[in-house]
Amino acid sequence: MQTKKQELEGKLQKIRELEQRLTFRLHILSKQIDQQAAEMLRDTPINLSAYRFMTTLESLGESSIADMARFIAMDRALASRTAVELERKRYVEFRKDPSNRRKKLVALTKDGEEFLSHIMPRFEARRTKLRAHLGEDMFASLHDCLDRLEDAIKD
Amino acid sequence: MQTKKQELEGKLQKIRELEQRLTFRLHILSKQIDQQAAEMLRDTPINLSAYRFMTTLESLGESSIADMARFIAMDRALASRTAVELERKRYVEFRKDPSNRRKKLVALTKDGEEFLSHIMPRFEARRTKLRAHLGEDMFASLHDCLDRLEDAIKD
Repeated sequence: MQTKKQELEGKLQKIRELEQRLTFRLHILSKQIDQQAAEMLRDTPINLSAYRFMTTLESLGESSIADMARFIAMDRALASRTAVELERKRYVEFRKDPSNRRKKLVALTKDGEEFLSHIMPRFEARRTKLRAHLGEDMFASLHDCLDRLEDAIKD
Repeated sequence: MQTKKQELEGKLQKIRELEQRLTFRLHILSKQIDQQAAEMLRDTPINLSAYRFMTTLESLGESSIADMARFIAMDRALASRTAVELERKRYVEFRKDPSNRRKKLVALTKDGEEFLSHIMPRFEARRTKLRAHLGEDMFASLHDCLDRLEDAIKD
């Protein structure tokens, strides 16, 4: 019985260690946040990659696909496919870069802006809820930790 | 000139706001950590999903695909494909669950364990570096924040 108990405790310990790995935790948490966001978009014509693409475009203004991909740490091919799908839905349009005619820029259309303003309140509500749940002190300290972690990753 | 300056400041402000969104930050950071991990696996025969699958299996011991998928918040189909690929490399094997013959379990093989012990030091080195860069106080406070955030997400 003692051996069985020790064996189970050993197993439990290994699981706890895994769950305490920072990069593993961040991955799982980020996945859970993504799954929740995907759920929030289920009744809309776009998926989470497209939503991320559109909100980023809204913040950056017209941009090249390469800049978009870099900013959201999205695979370049996925960014490109996402832009093409969004163009088909008339939420974005392609423009020629006046300073370099070979470079293509992507920008939100009026339809795209309207659609975003229709669904962004859901995400704002989630942000407000998360922030309230964390409390102001923890919210600030989490941002500080993420700043430091970003530095550490770049290192 | 003043208008142009105001316009640029307005644009910059929008980008800063986006970068300060917690869920956005977590997503980007998690992506960057993933890209780094993928780089660390480039000279090995497995990708990041497979590595995650194997380390989790190492901690959990033999498990069903469903349990594995749940534990690593991995899409069930991807978990299944990953297991099949790893079996082809002889790093995992499938077993019948003695308590339910219709249920299939997956477990690390000796080869899988050896391979893991060969590449895990790279990841341990990264963990040690991240922890040192954060410092003990910030490391603890980051874990506290993540605990709270996990609760908030489940809510």
